[in-house]
Amino acid sequence: MQIAILLYDRFTALDAVGPYDTLSRIPGAETVLVAERTGEHRNDTGTLALTADAALSDVTAPDVLVVPGGPGQAALMDDGPLHDWIRAVDTRTTWTTSVCTGSLILAATGLLKGRRATSHWLALDRLPSHGAEPTGERVVFDGKYVTAAGVSSGIDMGLALAGRIAGDTLAQTVQLGIEYDPRPPYDAGSPEKAPAGITAAMRARSRFVLEG
Amino acid sequence: MQIAILLYDRFTALDAVGPYDTLSRIPGAETVLVAERTGEHRNDTGTLALTADAALSDVTAPDVLVVPGGPGQAALMDDGPLHDWIRAVDTRTTWTTSVCTGSLILAATGLLKGRRATSHWLALDRLPSHGAEPTGERVVFDGKYVTAAGVSSGIDMGLALAGRIAGDTLAQTVQLGIEYDPRPPYDAGSPEKAPAGITAAMRARSRFVLEG
Repeated sequence: MQIAILLYDRFTALDAVGPYDTLSRIPGAETVLVAERTGEHRNDTGTLALTADAALSDVTAPDVLVVPGGPGQAALMDDGPLHDWIRAVDTRTTWTTSVCTGSLILAATGLLKGRRATSHWLALDRLPSHGAEPTGERVVFDGKYVTAAGVSSGIDMGLALAGRIAGDTLAQTVQLGIEYDPRPPYDAGSPEKAPAGITAAMRARSRFVLEG
Repeated sequence: MQIAILLYDRFTALDAVGPYDTLSRIPGAETVLVAERTGEHRNDTGTLALTADAALSDVTAPDVLVVPGGPGQAALMDDGPLHDWIRAVDTRTTWTTSVCTGSLILAATGLLKGRRATSHWLALDRLPSHGAEPTGERVVFDGKYVTAAGVSSGIDMGLALAGRIAGDTLAQTVQLGIEYDPRPPYDAGSPEKAPAGITAAMRARSRFVLEG
């Protein structure tokens, strides 16, 4: 089973690594970081680089595709070779997935048309223009399309997918292995739970958050 | 403020990226991935590589040091240049921290002697031989030494540290930015919560888990 995680310039590291460190622990899984060009890709802050070991043409039939988010997605919304590749591999995947604003890229390819989906809470209102129906859930399954909310939700998605792919016992084993028993020191992880002033301030600079 | 995150061969990616994507969002923070040699470092499964942009000699006075865990720690337990560097920069840090089995490296340098600390649940019993006192907490503060439990706990640690460094409002802003409102699809994230058979099976192969 091959799991392909897409990289691009100015991705958000945790969007990619949350699914990576859950899905890559499925026995028999081969995980590959793939991008339009091989080599280093810098994240949203520019101080972290992950290596793409494969070019798009090297990955033609992944079982799982993961599209992470990050401000770099804004440069990937136009049709072209990347969209062609996503649509092509989607004909072969068992699961086509995204984290955070990665769902905007998936939606822009047309694959989420008429489907329920989610994204970073600041980006939810951008889904309908691509024909997707935003939901408030943290991880949304619609057929083989799985979208997760902002950044850290990729861990929850990875575990949920691991369960669908390899069963509950394996997914629980992965959860125990990464000791995922979260205890956030604050309860501010959603726009409803965060102090109103913090949510409002972030909404006011949402263009900056989304596009860097 | 400089935040240095140590890389080494066979680290666990989420151990490094959880603290990265919380601490790097502190305004004015400069985050640097540092290792004994610059360039690519492969993780525990070998299918992901992060780049160390700095060598140890390039980083002499970080404000925060983060030592991630991973099976590669087993090769870093002997005294030598890396331990010398950790002890030297520790004289300059405001916070010296670890995630998962990174605490075994810190402990081996002598810095956790007589201190309360934690580690991956499978490695807790290795702390006393280095003079540290294991606790069952997810994130342990003892003076300026902060240790986190297994893998995913680095996110909780990063947020707690962000609060100490930059205040509650900033930490809550980071939490909202990464939409950290966890909803694990299972409740198996600690040895007490996981089904007994899963915990026992993982304990039975703990050497493999810890040393790959």
